[in-house]
Amino acid sequence: MSNTEMLRLIDCQQIEQSLIAYCMQLDRMDLAALAALFTDDCEVDFGDDPRLKSSGSAALAQSMQRVWRWVRTSHHLSNVVIDFVDDDTANVTSYVYAWHENPDGSNATILGRYLDRFVRQSGRWLIAQRRMEMNGNDTGFRSPIHAFERIGPPTGWSAPDIDRPPST
Amino acid sequence: MSNTEMLRLIDCQQIEQSLIAYCMQLDRMDLAALAALFTDDCEVDFGDDPRLKSSGSAALAQSMQRVWRWVRTSHHLSNVVIDFVDDDTANVTSYVYAWHENPDGSNATILGRYLDRFVRQSGRWLIAQRRMEMNGNDTGFRSPIHAFERIGPPTGWSAPDIDRPPST
Amino acid sequence: MSNTEMLRLIDCQQIEQSLIAYCMQLDRMDLAALAALFTDDCEVDFGDDPRLKSSGSAALAQSMQRVWRWVRTSHHLSNVVIDFVDDDTANVTSYVYAWHENPDGSNATILGRYLDRFVRQSGRWLIAQRRMEMNGNDTGFRSPIHAFERIGPPTGWSAPDIDRPPST
Repeated sequence: MSNTEMLRLIDCQQIEQSLIAYCMQLDRMDLAALAALFTDDCEVDFGDDPRLKSSGSAALAQSMQRVWRWVRTSHHLSNVVIDFVDDDTANVTSYVYAWHENPDGSNATILGRYLDRFVRQSGRWLIAQRRMEMNGNDTGFRSPIHAFERIGPPTGWSAPDIDRPPST
Repeated sequence: MSNTEMLRLIDCQQIEQSLIAYCMQLDRMDLAALAALFTDDCEVDFGDDPRLKSSGSAALAQSMQRVWRWVRTSHHLSNVVIDFVDDDTANVTSYVYAWHENPDGSNATILGRYLDRFVRQSGRWLIAQRRMEMNGNDTGFRSPIHAFERIGPPTGWSAPDIDRPPST
Repeated sequence: MSNTEMLRLIDCQQIEQSLIAYCMQLDRMDLAALAALFTDDCEVDFGDDPRLKSSGSAALAQSMQRVWRWVRTSHHLSNVVIDFVDDDTANVTSYVYAWHENPDGSNATILGRYLDRFVRQSGRWLIAQRRMEMNGNDTGFRSPIHAFERIGPPTGWSAPDIDRPPST
């Protein structure tokens, strides 16, 4: 194994740790610590609503105060895929299961994905660009996050009745 | 640390990336890309219903068209355990939280596990055998996936009332 | 890359595998295998109720019999953060999505976090201390797990109406 491959493993670990730190700081609502995971001039885009976009980490910290409209949240990260553009730049996709609780005790869950550009600055991997897309959401979650679009079925496809036993 | 241990770390990363790619291609419904994660002669078994079994990656791609009966899906992978049989073969268990949306907007979630045999062919780790089992499912999910069986309680065990305060 | 960094990667992998093994043995209800992941003199604390505390791995195995009050469970681990205190000690935080099914078929889900102290004994990483906290729970889950406390909003903060289009 080459030293380059080894260093890439360490880079992957650090990038994944940043993604996890975002989730944990968000659940903790430590917005200064959350903003420190981004570059000063980051661009963050959760949806078409201008209130879901931020330019710069200071504006992001301000904007994310909206998460206090939930009483509790829990963000579970998975499915991290890292594609290095060069030694100090990577395009990263990850999934998040994000659970939220309304003040009335009802829940809202989004199944989302983060599309990030990470850059290494002064030895630390930071998020320079983030776009969030929504694979799915339950009926309680209504924020207008960008929709993820999947490929549709071919012409003439019809749904099998796989959810019942074959003999009925 | 030996070079063998280092190479194993890289193998583990590649196997985990294949498991993640499966989830992402399924949510995207890029069934050609999904089938390319399996060996040509793979055996895939989701349940006893013959429509839940496939022999070969081409048949798998065809069979997985059934996932279009859901409007949206989100598959979140975790709990990856890799057991190497030899340098080019590994038994792998992983968990999936799989969310599905019906055309009427209702949801169906399965808590599942993949039991896979990975083999290395031409330098790539591919799934040669896959069996899916179900840890649990909500009432909306009714596909007859193989049930995971846990160990039962000993004779005479009775349930504690731990979900209420001790004084009531 | 130094050899120390490489050994740390292996340590991280082993610790994460122990966290995953806990989840899988719990879903399987192999409580002897679960207890073997802890030190003999471990201290485990899920909540203030004395029935949610255990001293020693034998007592833990006994206490965890309470999980049989659920018919099925599925524990999905994520968000692992490892902080080494020294070569043989680490403080570890992780998240768990824990799904449970009642005998009547209804579900109960907790979004939790494990706060662990791992120690290396005879070459194996074991859990010496575990505290569980709850980020959130649905209305079906009522066990009195320790609450995770997040930072509150500043004085004068008011909730934006981000969940509706801006023009309405």
